[in-house]
Amino acid sequence: MMTERYLEDLNVGDKFGSKTFEITEKSIVDFSEQFDPQSFHLDLDAARRSVFRGLVASGWHTAAISMRLFVTGDLRLAGGSIGLCVDDLEWPRPVRPGDILQVQTEILEIRPSRSKPDRGIIRIRNVTTNQDGEVVQTFVASVLVRCRSVKGRPE
Amino acid sequence: MMTERYLEDLNVGDKFGSKTFEITEKSIVDFSEQFDPQSFHLDLDAARRSVFRGLVASGWHTAAISMRLFVTGDLRLAGGSIGLCVDDLEWPRPVRPGDILQVQTEILEIRPSRSKPDRGIIRIRNVTTNQDGEVVQTFVASVLVRCRSVKGRPE
Repeated sequence: MMTERYLEDLNVGDKFGSKTFEITEKSIVDFSEQFDPQSFHLDLDAARRSVFRGLVASGWHTAAISMRLFVTGDLRLAGGSIGLCVDDLEWPRPVRPGDILQVQTEILEIRPSRSKPDRGIIRIRNVTTNQDGEVVQTFVASVLVRCRSVKGRPE
Repeated sequence: MMTERYLEDLNVGDKFGSKTFEITEKSIVDFSEQFDPQSFHLDLDAARRSVFRGLVASGWHTAAISMRLFVTGDLRLAGGSIGLCVDDLEWPRPVRPGDILQVQTEILEIRPSRSKPDRGIIRIRNVTTNQDGEVVQTFVASVLVRCRSVKGRPE
């Protein structure tokens, strides 16, 4: 059963999985037309002639899908996932049509707020892999988390 | 006239502007349904009761719009904009329906490749502002850039 997690429920080193998400050629082109209109994201022939040797997803599309997998994944934070800062966002290999993506989240650090006892900040690493277990995206993020034990939570 | 820029055309401190992009309530909800299904991005009433006190765009939506503004903006890199790494991605204030976004890009660093003389890497800061000039997103990125002067460019 999936329950919402508060700061007190988390430990450094905890890992959380996600569902999977298949990325289609159509969704790659649709996203890129809206947000990243470059030939290697839009046009099969131009993509074949590019450094990528074929159609690839925008890195921001991979990031958006990874957010979906994170939000609907096993680490359900009480009150939602509110990201404060992202670092070391990298795309070590391209995402191609038909790839099936999945996200693993690891808790790197837990810091209760000194000034606001109803919340804290966790530092997490999110790693997105494809169906062959190859890493297609990584980043580290700071995320706001509520505390269970204190009244007057932000609502 | 807009021409494509190569590494040799760029100088540290150069700044480049973009068009503008208006974000609508419908596009906030559409994006969030696909990629960030959380109540404060989806539902007006729930959003009013959240820490945001109203509907706000997913940070990844702001990032995607910022990519569109960057790619279609004044810094047109020859061969396209291929990001290698993003750091210090932050959303200092929320983006709300009706906001009109714009991106400014500054060149922070220029490094020709030692091993591959046909290319280099630039470090840029992208700052996204709203119609009141308030910063809604910032990040620093490393981007691949072609050199003009060498044959055998990556194609």
